[in-house]
Amino acid sequence: MSGTNRIYNFSAGPAVLPEAVLQQAQAELTSWQGCGISVMEMSHRSKQFTQIIEEAEADARSLYGIPDNYKVLFLQGGASLQFTMAAMNLMGDEADFITTGSWGSKAIGAAKLQGKANAIYSSKEFGFDRCPDLSTLDYSDTASYVHFTMNETIQGVDYGYDPEIGRELVCDMSSNIGCRPFDVSKYGMIYAGAQKNIGPAGMTLVIIREDLLEKIPDGLPPMLDYKVHADAGSCYNTPACWSIYMAGLVFKHWLSKGGLNAVQTLNAEKADLLYGTIDGSNGFYRGHAQNEFRSTMNVPFVITNDELTGKFIAEAKAEGLVELKGHRSVGGCRASIYNAFPIAGVVKLTQFMKEFAASNS
Amino acid sequence: MSGTNRIYNFSAGPAVLPEAVLQQAQAELTSWQGCGISVMEMSHRSKQFTQIIEEAEADARSLYGIPDNYKVLFLQGGASLQFTMAAMNLMGDEADFITTGSWGSKAIGAAKLQGKANAIYSSKEFGFDRCPDLSTLDYSDTASYVHFTMNETIQGVDYGYDPEIGRELVCDMSSNIGCRPFDVSKYGMIYAGAQKNIGPAGMTLVIIREDLLEKIPDGLPPMLDYKVHADAGSCYNTPACWSIYMAGLVFKHWLSKGGLNAVQTLNAEKADLLYGTIDGSNGFYRGHAQNEFRSTMNVPFVITNDELTGKFIAEAKAEGLVELKGHRSVGGCRASIYNAFPIAGVVKLTQFMKEFAASNS
Repeated sequence: MSGTNRIYNFSAGPAVLPEAVLQQAQAELTSWQGCGISVMEMSHRSKQFTQIIEEAEADARSLYGIPDNYKVLFLQGGASLQFTMAAMNLMGDEADFITTGSWGSKAIGAAKLQGKANAIYSSKEFGFDRCPDLSTLDYSDTASYVHFTMNETIQGVDYGYDPEIGRELVCDMSSNIGCRPFDVSKYGMIYAGAQKNIGPAGMTLVIIREDLLEKIPDGLPPMLDYKVHADAGSCYNTPACWSIYMAGLVFKHWLSKGGLNAVQTLNAEKADLLYGTIDGSNGFYRGHAQNEFRSTMNVPFVITNDELTGKFIAEAKAEGLVELKGHRSVGGCRASIYNAFPIAGVVKLTQFMKEFAASNS
Repeated sequence: MSGTNRIYNFSAGPAVLPEAVLQQAQAELTSWQGCGISVMEMSHRSKQFTQIIEEAEADARSLYGIPDNYKVLFLQGGASLQFTMAAMNLMGDEADFITTGSWGSKAIGAAKLQGKANAIYSSKEFGFDRCPDLSTLDYSDTASYVHFTMNETIQGVDYGYDPEIGRELVCDMSSNIGCRPFDVSKYGMIYAGAQKNIGPAGMTLVIIREDLLEKIPDGLPPMLDYKVHADAGSCYNTPACWSIYMAGLVFKHWLSKGGLNAVQTLNAEKADLLYGTIDGSNGFYRGHAQNEFRSTMNVPFVITNDELTGKFIAEAKAEGLVELKGHRSVGGCRASIYNAFPIAGVVKLTQFMKEFAASNS
């Protein structure tokens, strides 16, 4: 890995960043573009930081194809705060929730404190291994929106497409934003914690259609009001400047690599390698998600003989393949292979998996 | 400045960081302590990050003298979110607010959305140039707490001591935390946005006495509930990992320099130099705050002949003295000389001020 001592980090988030981005951040850490101060020391009202945040927004718009009638906000608090803010701002009396894993469960839990949150679907009875056929669900005609989680980080299930159901959609894309081209215009609002595919933790991207801002009730605390943040260009108060700067570098990185089509091609290659190894293991490894909903970002799997799990994780770690333990709520193993995860790391993992299976069968 | 091209940055926040801290962060940016990944890429549940956040907390406790019966939280959203959270969590029906500048005004504004926020004092009629005699105020006996802002960043007024009024105190110390020794046990809760004296923006330090956590009402959104964050060791969701890491380095830096007594001595030296220059200018410069409430952190001043202000700021900038423009709400000039601001920069500024006054009188 470029002659450094870097290892392969399969963390589900915070997660691997493009090495070129880290190197640029390192080079200009004490003096951004020769200006004599660090990005971490810049007034958020300064000319320099204004340039950074405006470029980050422009590059996000370009990379993700965000139409002009959507606002792009850089907020704090992660997706977990968005569960609450989306409900406070947009729910009115009622919204519909589709639950396909742990994050969707948290989202409806938080929304229930704000209003009538209808649980119109949950794949819990299937161990969260699938997404529903959206045409068959019983939506409420009085719901302000339908909320769903595009990719479930812990269970590794992804719809794989932009739904069209003729209803207002609010979508948590934290763990798969930008993993493939997507059509923002299909959504009322999209949010994504940065720490998987965008940049370091501490920043949350919110993309919201402008007309929805007009529906926000009066009297919300200003820090929890999308309109306040939109009107202030994400600088109502001091934003997470460093995380925004890093996100901007990441956006530029993917634009320079060919945008989301190129990212999708790379992700397919990585996912095919890994799922192929699981499927070709004669049952030694077993994936969690049903095939058609397999995430290209998070690949949870088990070793059928679960007694070997600890050994697998320890031996992988000794090979420089770290953070392969499954989430504490589900156990097993998980390899998160986000956009920035290098294919060489997947090659090394799959070689290791084959050797481990051969030695332990 | 250490052979780099660094300049003197008087920004009110985000603000200057200790150069040694920036250099350490730079050196280990791509691989923290040789572990092969960046702090920005670490799972917040990893052994490495757990060490980072636990050390940051321990060092904060040591540096600030935080007693064991207080929780230390690393949250997001800045002081602006704390205006709302403190009120949601602790206000009950009613709290008292003392306003000595712009931030105190925002705090009571946000609290009014949550309950009965009594404006028991404001120095607005004096242009926010002073703090009240706390023994003379008309407190409400049914108020849950008294809120005040220790140091007003924009107006540069600081109480200069820990109040003792026999009432529960909630204090915004964003712009002067750690500028001198302070007695945490005098407060129910202290909060401080990091970006002035702690670290990069995106993290807010909250210090709260444990028994107050038991008074928090049920049913708050989890992300806005101090008890949720306290029970989860600030990792209910992914925290602002990089900002916490940087804060930890800053805490260690000040501990190695002799702690808050040493910081106070340095700050006094810097403030004496600067206020001395203002007072010795035969009225060419004029400070804003009354003498006994002068902040050692933020020094707002005007050039009596205001027509010279633009020239002053431009010529200072050409000398590598940047961000001297006063806040847009009050105009004039402001030099923020936080803990990490080097004394050499104050020497250079005061020399420049004398020369400018001589050339333009």
